[in-house]
Amino acid sequence: MFSYPLPMQRVIDALKRLPGIGPKSAERLTFALLRMEPAEIEQLADALVHLQRDLVTCSICHAWSQSDPCAICTDPRRDPHTLLVVEEMRDLLALERTGAYHGKYHVLGGVLSPLDGVGPEQLEVESLLHRVQQEQTQEVILATNPTVEGDATAVYLRDRLLPLGVTVSRLARGLPIGGDLEYADEVTLTRALEGRGAL
Amino acid sequence: MFSYPLPMQRVIDALKRLPGIGPKSAERLTFALLRMEPAEIEQLADALVHLQRDLVTCSICHAWSQSDPCAICTDPRRDPHTLLVVEEMRDLLALERTGAYHGKYHVLGGVLSPLDGVGPEQLEVESLLHRVQQEQTQEVILATNPTVEGDATAVYLRDRLLPLGVTVSRLARGLPIGGDLEYADEVTLTRALEGRGAL
Repeated sequence: MFSYPLPMQRVIDALKRLPGIGPKSAERLTFALLRMEPAEIEQLADALVHLQRDLVTCSICHAWSQSDPCAICTDPRRDPHTLLVVEEMRDLLALERTGAYHGKYHVLGGVLSPLDGVGPEQLEVESLLHRVQQEQTQEVILATNPTVEGDATAVYLRDRLLPLGVTVSRLARGLPIGGDLEYADEVTLTRALEGRGAL
Repeated sequence: MFSYPLPMQRVIDALKRLPGIGPKSAERLTFALLRMEPAEIEQLADALVHLQRDLVTCSICHAWSQSDPCAICTDPRRDPHTLLVVEEMRDLLALERTGAYHGKYHVLGGVLSPLDGVGPEQLEVESLLHRVQQEQTQEVILATNPTVEGDATAVYLRDRLLPLGVTVSRLARGLPIGGDLEYADEVTLTRALEGRGAL
């Protein structure tokens, strides 16, 4: 039986490994790539090669960055006494797009999920507690997603943070429950930030 | 305002150029790529670089191939007197997967679409007529998609082919109308091939 020429099959196989891309999508994308300008494909390939090579995780907030510490952690204009905790860097960028937050961030790297084997040790929890003590943080805003795991993680963090003498708040429940933080629109996110309440 | 580090933004921008990948999908894919093994990303980048470089279009049937002529055009076991005409190489592979066709192929490169500026000159029509005369073809099976454009293209080709003294047939109308040939299952495609009728 005739099948795809090897150069096509290799691209299809590599694309299929990406989340949300099935065999049919991989085939369609490969045909689209065949029709693109060679320069555009080279750009994509070059960007892929440099993606991990040129990025580090900031040793302070654990966001992806070109420098360590990152641009936010080293920005003197940002309030050093407020820390906003997000699950992933995507959420950090969603909040930055509102322009409504001027403190610092901490990227957890996920949520507590015992069934998936994710406990506090798999997340940046100890480094968060360490930062709060080192940086004399006054308020920690917990901005985990409004999901079961996100709420459980927020409650766990609150119980660990309150003994350190900081104010702990979370984003207002203006967020649609069960949704994903990164898909909220800027206005909703701004309201949620302004209306944050004690946890 | 803080935005993505440049190495991430470059990947996002490159992925957004692909059909069906919007800004949010591009962001999600980029984060997924950041978590992949470096070797897997290198594989994808390498496959992309070699995709166009290692492929040619077969000068006989116009399918993508590593050699010119392609493996099907040079295969002595395939019936040289039957030509099956498809819009795109995807369709050729869908038919090959049925195992029910043993002749040769001709890839048109699209369908007639006057509104999009696609006339017979933009498709491999002249080369098809030339092949039919050169290769002493006895039957041409028109396997354009069962859409308005596909049917119009089939009728146009029939009118050009019949004066050459060949039998012209099309796939049986067992195909779901308005659908896409490449998404049909193997059984439906096999039936359509067996039940082909005069055009």
